[in-house]
Amino acid sequence: MTAYDPENIFAKILRGEIPSTRVYEDDETLAFMDIMPRGDGHLLVIPKTPCRNILDATPEQLAAVMATVQKLARAVMKAFDADGVTVQQFNEAAGGQEVFHLHFHVLPRREGLPLRPPGKMGDLDEIAAHAERIRAALD
Amino acid sequence: MTAYDPENIFAKILRGEIPSTRVYEDDETLAFMDIMPRGDGHLLVIPKTPCRNILDATPEQLAAVMATVQKLARAVMKAFDADGVTVQQFNEAAGGQEVFHLHFHVLPRREGLPLRPPGKMGDLDEIAAHAERIRAALD
Repeated sequence: MTAYDPENIFAKILRGEIPSTRVYEDDETLAFMDIMPRGDGHLLVIPKTPCRNILDATPEQLAAVMATVQKLARAVMKAFDADGVTVQQFNEAAGGQEVFHLHFHVLPRREGLPLRPPGKMGDLDEIAAHAERIRAALD
Repeated sequence: MTAYDPENIFAKILRGEIPSTRVYEDDETLAFMDIMPRGDGHLLVIPKTPCRNILDATPEQLAAVMATVQKLARAVMKAFDADGVTVQQFNEAAGGQEVFHLHFHVLPRREGLPLRPPGKMGDLDEIAAHAERIRAALD
């Protein structure tokens, strides 16, 4: 597998070199808003330590990330009065991965409302407002 | 959230009341083939203990399931000489969930080959042959 590239955009977000809209962090993980949201409240959870994807992650990285995914899944249910949550995790380009730092997508869902097509920039003010709702829903 | 229904089909698979094509199991988890594969090698990983989805799972259930998801993601890469792996996990009907026992989809992917549409029964002989390749790729 290709080596981890420390210049990927999530590594830059972790180093504070580019901005992000953070909703949660702990010692091992960070959750922040996807800037191309496929639905209101679409966020990403990543480990703070480097790994490319699930194929090279350590058990510790995976367990920490999943604990945060669960925390945020519960938070978005509350924040958006959602009917469900879709979790996606892509590995390598053929698997759908575009940024090569392990990440899980957390997508609050409403009955009958399909995901929006990928690849379209969201409105940053709207994303900031959604982030605030998620932060408020966290304990 | 709705209570866990012990008559869901994955609970029946776990109890051996209905057949499944198993590829891996340990004390806490089971991996078996999806009978409506969205691609060759499409499999599911579940905990052996009851929980509805990520919203009510314990940290122990999630960690055990993720360790098996990782093991199988690596195995399908090898078994199918895959270019990537897509992992999906659906919560509640609005989130895409159809069977209400926590499960992760593991989908080996090939460059340029989209997922097949959902909901179509696969060929059981072909699924059995794919399962054999996955078993052989596990250590």
